[in-house]
Amino acid sequence: MALVVQKYGGSSVADAEGIKRVAKRIVATKAAGNQVVVVVSAMGDTTDELLDLANQVTPAPPGRELDMLLTSGERISMALLAMAIATLGMEARSFTGSQAGVITDDVHGTARIIDVTPGRISSALAEGAIPIVAGFQGVSQNTKDITTLGRGGSDTTAVALAAALNADVCEIYTDVDGVFTEDPRLVPSARRIPRITYEEMLEMAACGAKVLIPRCVEYARRYNLPIHVRSSFSDKIGTWVSGHAGDESEEAGMEQAIISGVAHDRSEGKITVVGVPDKVGAAASIFGIVAEAGVNIDMIVQNVSAIATGRTDISFTLPGAEGQKTLETLRAAQDKIGFQDLLYDDRIGKVSLIGAGMRSHPGVSAKFFASLAEAGVNIQMITTSEIRISVVVSQGDVDVAVNATHRAFGLDADEVEAVVYGGTGR
Amino acid sequence: MALVVQKYGGSSVADAEGIKRVAKRIVATKAAGNQVVVVVSAMGDTTDELLDLANQVTPAPPGRELDMLLTSGERISMALLAMAIATLGMEARSFTGSQAGVITDDVHGTARIIDVTPGRISSALAEGAIPIVAGFQGVSQNTKDITTLGRGGSDTTAVALAAALNADVCEIYTDVDGVFTEDPRLVPSARRIPRITYEEMLEMAACGAKVLIPRCVEYARRYNLPIHVRSSFSDKIGTWVSGHAGDESEEAGMEQAIISGVAHDRSEGKITVVGVPDKVGAAASIFGIVAEAGVNIDMIVQNVSAIATGRTDISFTLPGAEGQKTLETLRAAQDKIGFQDLLYDDRIGKVSLIGAGMRSHPGVSAKFFASLAEAGVNIQMITTSEIRISVVVSQGDVDVAVNATHRAFGLDADEVEAVVYGGTGR
Repeated sequence: MALVVQKYGGSSVADAEGIKRVAKRIVATKAAGNQVVVVVSAMGDTTDELLDLANQVTPAPPGRELDMLLTSGERISMALLAMAIATLGMEARSFTGSQAGVITDDVHGTARIIDVTPGRISSALAEGAIPIVAGFQGVSQNTKDITTLGRGGSDTTAVALAAALNADVCEIYTDVDGVFTEDPRLVPSARRIPRITYEEMLEMAACGAKVLIPRCVEYARRYNLPIHVRSSFSDKIGTWVSGHAGDESEEAGMEQAIISGVAHDRSEGKITVVGVPDKVGAAASIFGIVAEAGVNIDMIVQNVSAIATGRTDISFTLPGAEGQKTLETLRAAQDKIGFQDLLYDDRIGKVSLIGAGMRSHPGVSAKFFASLAEAGVNIQMITTSEIRISVVVSQGDVDVAVNATHRAFGLDADEVEAVVYGGTGR
Repeated sequence: MALVVQKYGGSSVADAEGIKRVAKRIVATKAAGNQVVVVVSAMGDTTDELLDLANQVTPAPPGRELDMLLTSGERISMALLAMAIATLGMEARSFTGSQAGVITDDVHGTARIIDVTPGRISSALAEGAIPIVAGFQGVSQNTKDITTLGRGGSDTTAVALAAALNADVCEIYTDVDGVFTEDPRLVPSARRIPRITYEEMLEMAACGAKVLIPRCVEYARRYNLPIHVRSSFSDKIGTWVSGHAGDESEEAGMEQAIISGVAHDRSEGKITVVGVPDKVGAAASIFGIVAEAGVNIDMIVQNVSAIATGRTDISFTLPGAEGQKTLETLRAAQDKIGFQDLLYDDRIGKVSLIGAGMRSHPGVSAKFFASLAEAGVNIQMITTSEIRISVVVSQGDVDVAVNATHRAFGLDADEVEAVVYGGTGR
C-alpha cells in the first residue's frame, strides 16, 4: 500500500464541477489500494478577488492581516473538496496548515517552513479518512500567527508534507500534461519530458519553466522524494522528477538524454554599470549595495577591461520589477563605486538549454551558439553551469531562439516526443 | 478606562465602505480612552454565497466541513477590518475563534460554548493593540475541530468574550436604533425602549423580537453583563439590557414601565391532537414522541375534557418548518396514543405582551384581551408567564392585534417614545 500525496492547483478546483472531478480522482486513488493525502490551493481566482477586497480597504495591508485574509481561500476549497468526497462515500477531513502541523518562521507573505509535525494527518490516515490539507499556509512558531508561503506555496506544502510523512510519491496536478522541453504555446512541437533529475528540474525552473518552482524542487531533492507532475484533466503519465544528475547507475545512463529541454524567461531586466574602475573590490562593492537593497540578481558578466582606460563594464540581470529600485540604489552610490554611467534594458529575454548530459559533451555550447547564429539571433550575455547554458538575447528574438534551439537539439516531437510551461498560482 | 466589547453584524460590514466606517467608530472609541475588543460577523451575504457553493457540490454537506467552509467568512471580514484600522494609524490584530480561546462542544453547526480562555486577547490589549475576533466560531474541546455556534452566534461570541474579559459593556451594533416596543415596520408609532431587564428581553426575544437571540441574553444575564444594542449607522444611544425583573431598588422601580413592549411571531404552526383519551400519561406520551423527533414545541393548551366522551383535545405550537415531520411522527403513533384525529394550521400568529410590571397589575391580561376583542380579533390559545402573556391568533389578524395592543398600553411614540424587530444573521 503506497502513501500518495496529491496536490491540486487552483485551476483544477476552479468551480464545483472541477471539485467533483478532483474528488473522483482522489477516491479512485484510494480505491486502488493507496493511502492518500491531498493538498489543495484556493479555487481559481479567489486569491485575486481577496486581494481586490484588501485594496478597496487599504493601499498597504499589514502582512499579518493579509495572510489571515488570503488563507480563507484554501479553507473554502478544502472544505468543499472534503464534502465532494463524502458524497462519493468516503470520509475526508480538511485541515488548515496550522492543524496539519506546517510550522514556519514569522515572515508574513513569504514564510519558510521550519518543521512539519503532521500528527493529525497521520491519525486521520490511521482511521481510514482522507486528509485534505490547505496548501500555501502555515503557522508561525514564535507568534502563533497564520502565515503564507508565497508564490508556489501549495507545491511546497505538498512536498514538505510528503517528506514528513515519508510518502512514496508527491503528485503535483496541474492543467498541463507534465514538464515539456519548451512551452508548447511557443514551440508547438515541444514534447513531454518523461523523467528528469532534481538538478535539471531546478535549472529548468530557475530559467523560467513555470510548472514547478525551484523551492519545491529543492525540498524534494533534499529528501529524495519523487515528484510526479501530471494533468488533473487526464489519466496520462506526466513527468517524474527524481534521481540526481550525478547518478551513474546504468538505468539512469540509459534513460538520460543529453539535453532535457529549453526554458525561457522574459521577465528580467539587464543593468550595465559602465566604466567601473578595474580594481580589487569593485564588483564586491556593486553587488554588496544591490544585495543590501534586497534584490536577487541572476546572471553576471564582466568584460575584460580596456587597457587604455583601466576601466571595465559589468552587466547583470535581475527581476524586471526590481529594475528602477536598483538603478536608484546604484545611482546614490555612484561616487563611492566610481563608475561612469548606468544603462538599463528591460527588453531582454533569457534562453536556457538544460541537460545533465552536456558536461560530458563539449560540443553542446558550440551547437547552441551556432543554432542561434543561423537563426540571426545576437547573443548579449552568456553564463554556464554544469548542466545549463543560458544566453540573454533581445526580447523580440526569444521565439526564434527557442524554436531554433529546440530543433537543433532534436527535441521536436516528430523526432522524439515535448517543453516547460504552465502557470502555478500559489 | 473602560473595557468595551463591540460586536458588528454582517450588515454593518457588508462592503469596503462599511468596513471603513466601522473602523472609524472603533478607533474613536479607543481614542476616547477605552480598551476595545471587536467581534465581527461575515460580510453581508458571504454566508449565503458559501452555502450556495456547498449546495453545488453536495446536497448534504458533513457538519465538520460545513463549519470549516462557513468560518472562512469571518476570516475575511476580520482581516479587512484590521487592515482598515491599521490605515487609521492604530494596531489591530485579527483572531479566529480558536485563537481567541472560544472552546465549544463538538456539535457542528450549533456548538455550545464550554469555556473562553482569551489569553491572546488579553495580551494584545496589554500591548495596546485592538483585537478583532471572528464571531460565530470556536474550536471543539475534544476533537480540536472548528465549530460554529449557529444562528445569532456572533452575538453569543461577543457576550461570552465580554464576560470572560470582565468587560464593562458589550455593545451589539446592528442596523436599527435599538430594541423597540414593536417592529416599526409593523407599528410605525413604535418607540425605542431605553432600558430593559434581562428577563423581559428574554421574553421579547423568545416571542419573536429578532434584535437579540435568547441564548445571548441568557449568557449576559448569568454574568450580569450589560448589553447596549445600538445602530452602527448613527451615534444615538440604543437600548440598555441590564438588571433583573426582581430588582426592587428605587431606581429600577422608578424607571420601570409596566409594559416593555409587544412582540409577534408568524413562523409557527399549530397542531391539535383531537380526541385524546383523558387518562394519566396521555400528554406525556404525545410530547415524549414529539421530543424524540427533536422538535422544540412552544405553547401547549389542553382543553377540559368532554364528560360524555372521556376524551380531550390537546393543541400545541411549534416552528412551522417542523410541522410536516411532526405530523408524520404523530400519525405513526396514533394507535399507541389512541387519539382520533390530527389538525394542522400554519396560518397562525403569536402576539405577546411583555413587562416585568404586569405580575403586580392584575388588570393587564383583561385589558390585553379587551383590546383584542375591540379590534375584532379572535383568540385561539393563551399562555402566560410571570412577565409575559401570549395569544395565538389567525395570521391575518396579527397586524391589527399588535397595533391595538400597542395603543391600548400607551406604547405609541406620541404618548411616551418605540418596538422589537431587526434581523440577526449569525
